Amino acid sequence: MTDCEKYLRENRQRLQQEFLGFLGIPSISALPQNQGDVRRAAEWLVRRLEAAGVAGARLLDTRAQPVIYAEWLQAPCKPTALIYGHYDVQPADPLDLWTTPPFQPTIRAGRIYARGASDMKSGIVQAVDAVEALLRTTGRLPINVKFFFEGQEEMGSPQAPAFVAANKELLACDLILNADSSQWGENEPALLVGLRGICAMECTVVSANTDMHSGLYGGAVPNANHILSELVASLHRPDGSVAVAGFYDDVAPLSRQERERIAAVPFDEEEFRRDLGLAEAVGEPGYSTLEREWARPTLDVSGLWGGFIGEGIKTVIPKEAHAKLSCRLVPNQDPAKILDLLDAHLAAHVSRGAKVTTRHEEGMVQAYLVPVDHPGTRAARDVLLEMYGKEPYYIRMGGSVPILDIFLRELGAYAIPFGFSLPDERVHAPDEFYRVASFERGQLAFCKILVRLGAG
Amino acid sequence: MTDCEKYLRENRQRLQQEFLGFLGIPSISALPQNQGDVRRAAEWLVRRLEAAGVAGARLLDTRAQPVIYAEWLQAPCKPTALIYGHYDVQPADPLDLWTTPPFQPTIRAGRIYARGASDMKSGIVQAVDAVEALLRTTGRLPINVKFFFEGQEEMGSPQAPAFVAANKELLACDLILNADSSQWGENEPALLVGLRGICAMECTVVSANTDMHSGLYGGAVPNANHILSELVASLHRPDGSVAVAGFYDDVAPLSRQERERIAAVPFDEEEFRRDLGLAEAVGEPGYSTLEREWARPTLDVSGLWGGFIGEGIKTVIPKEAHAKLSCRLVPNQDPAKILDLLDAHLAAHVSRGAKVTTRHEEGMVQAYLVPVDHPGTRAARDVLLEMYGKEPYYIRMGGSVPILDIFLRELGAYAIPFGFSLPDERVHAPDEFYRVASFERGQLAFCKILVRLGAG
Repeated sequence: MTDCEKYLRENRQRLQQEFLGFLGIPSISALPQNQGDVRRAAEWLVRRLEAAGVAGARLLDTRAQPVIYAEWLQAPCKPTALIYGHYDVQPADPLDLWTTPPFQPTIRAGRIYARGASDMKSGIVQAVDAVEALLRTTGRLPINVKFFFEGQEEMGSPQAPAFVAANKELLACDLILNADSSQWGENEPALLVGLRGICAMECTVVSANTDMHSGLYGGAVPNANHILSELVASLHRPDGSVAVAGFYDDVAPLSRQERERIAAVPFDEEEFRRDLGLAEAVGEPGYSTLEREWARPTLDVSGLWGGFIGEGIKTVIPKEAHAKLSCRLVPNQDPAKILDLLDAHLAAHVSRGAKVTTRHEEGMVQAYLVPVDHPGTRAARDVLLEMYGKEPYYIRMGGSVPILDIFLRELGAYAIPFGFSLPDERVHAPDEFYRVASFERGQLAFCKILVRLGAG
Repeated sequence: MTDCEKYLRENRQRLQQEFLGFLGIPSISALPQNQGDVRRAAEWLVRRLEAAGVAGARLLDTRAQPVIYAEWLQAPCKPTALIYGHYDVQPADPLDLWTTPPFQPTIRAGRIYARGASDMKSGIVQAVDAVEALLRTTGRLPINVKFFFEGQEEMGSPQAPAFVAANKELLACDLILNADSSQWGENEPALLVGLRGICAMECTVVSANTDMHSGLYGGAVPNANHILSELVASLHRPDGSVAVAGFYDDVAPLSRQERERIAAVPFDEEEFRRDLGLAEAVGEPGYSTLEREWARPTLDVSGLWGGFIGEGIKTVIPKEAHAKLSCRLVPNQDPAKILDLLDAHLAAHVSRGAKVTTRHEEGMVQAYLVPVDHPGTRAARDVLLEMYGKEPYYIRMGGSVPILDIFLRELGAYAIPFGFSLPDERVHAPDEFYRVASFERGQLAFCKILVRLGAG
């Protein structure tokens, strides 16, 4: 047993009590009445960092929920890791579905029940506890460490892009340890190495200058609903692949190794279909469901409307109809170029006589892929292998996490997922919980990865 | 000059004043605060009929706006005509767009400005004036006449079907003279001989048991918006015709004569397109615009919706999507059968794995076609020819007028259009008006058609 491990074991009760105290602060970023609590949680963290031995921890004002910044930079010639997390939580309603109140943390059968227990106060506290253990037992850290804890992740981090861009020097690092992460199962480690990008637009078809009575005009005038439906139908081939010319041109093909890594992830197709009520899995031919979700680009119409959509009948032929289109993108696809290809497709396929216009949405995000041989990925893999006794799955996620893209763009640094939440912990829902065992495993894992990064 | 004509001329001032008095009653059926006025207008009509010489005119209670019924049945062996009209009017707002108040009838430059002047108190009063003239000058009417004036047409005649069905004996007749009609132009007579029918349904596509996150699941699950769009696109052929199997099977083909009659109606294709802002006329190949509007069946999607249709972006893959379908039908098409054909088409064309359900809407209406050789049509044609000095256009309308279908079904009698409104009279809009000349023409025309029906 290392000194660090011993320290964590000896201080187990105190560290757990401190964690419960932090969970007791209802730092709900989205609710106006909780803004004082958000600040209290931020101040709690500053004090906690100081107590752990990180001098100079401070609140940085963002004109909204504050950022906590701290640093320990006394390891010359060693890399610098930025530990990222968020201390804000989701609203807790419906309150009556909680077995015990969301901000009165309660331990039952080895589980800590509280809003934010899994998502993700645990991750922050584990990292700080690990730093304390290392500082107390060795007097120093194996690498340079910066802390960046934000307080508005649960409301979409509206100020994060500008904040990171304005504080590049302060946040400069070699890699990010993203404590807002999870494992595959209690005994199954995983490393999130890829995310899809996103781009979106709204499309409007106009076919006349007025809505028309379907009795008086029906049969002799164009119907915007028909035209839009034809356009939407034209976006995909019958086999489910995207029919937009050039859509796949820049897609980095999946390597044999990437496919093998995805195939190694346990996935129950039958359960997947049953859960979602699908009669059959669908999608691009030649790819598995996980490949389709994680590593292939998509085009989905998330919204569609035109004409009369209220109760009953209104016999109208609409002059216009609308669709919201969004694409999930994979490495090497350029969001802006994809939107241009979509524009060209729509213009080429719209019925003669009708006009189609589009509005490109803000917030395009490139796909994100952490190199598997990145030193951070290797270090995380080694720690997980040691702690779980088995290789982690290399997983991806079909969604987008804008903050990771911002870090990469602004700081030039990849984020290594390093968190210990599990999929069953009722994140964003009543009775959210986190396992005591995960908490202790996370503390130790953070010690180990800092040591390993220092040795690399 | 006939005695009748002379009588009308001699009583011109009084009859016009009476008409203006009737127009002054704001009998707006749709507004609760005007229900007393509706009743006042009904009572005015009863007194007016009595004064005209029709004894026993009375209000029939419908538990809503009353029906006025009256009869003169002293012409044995002669046919019976039911004169139909409505004494209720549309709301008059926006009031500030009226040059003179809507219920202070004002004559300017040969036009009577008031709400209800064109639609259609004029038609009722003309018929009653004609009856008065005939009774006063000849002591009798050339045929048996019944009067059926309703007070809820402008709100869709909700009680009419049940009322007519419950009063078949009372309303029994050989033909209906529909005073709620119009001519083509000041010097161009027209006879409305056809209306399209209607049937409608709402269609729902379900592809999963839950909405899904487009990032997490996109590419591996069906999207109800895509499936619905494909279904809607499948409803028409590229040439604009309806692709539903069997849709045209029962359609009575247009005869050469019918097509000639439609072609004789003046129609400016260029103006039609400009008015509606259409780049080009579209529709079933082989038919003119008027044929498409009047005499060919259609299928229009009047409403379409699925997924997120609010402001901004919500990255959802919808589990369901909806469309409102309505068909305009032509003679020999059965509305219920058409809806069944639509059901079969949707079931056959929906993507594998998705479910489509439909709800057939109430209020199906058969297409309506008055035989051109019907005695009433012939009489109306003869009167119009005599009064205008030219043959009337035989026009149709693409919409549906449910009351005519009700009369045909319940009473077995066709409705002969016999009204003198003109298309420019701002019906349902501010500054609605009716021409003094049309009023006097209408009085005389009603005398003439009753005489002609008696001679037939």
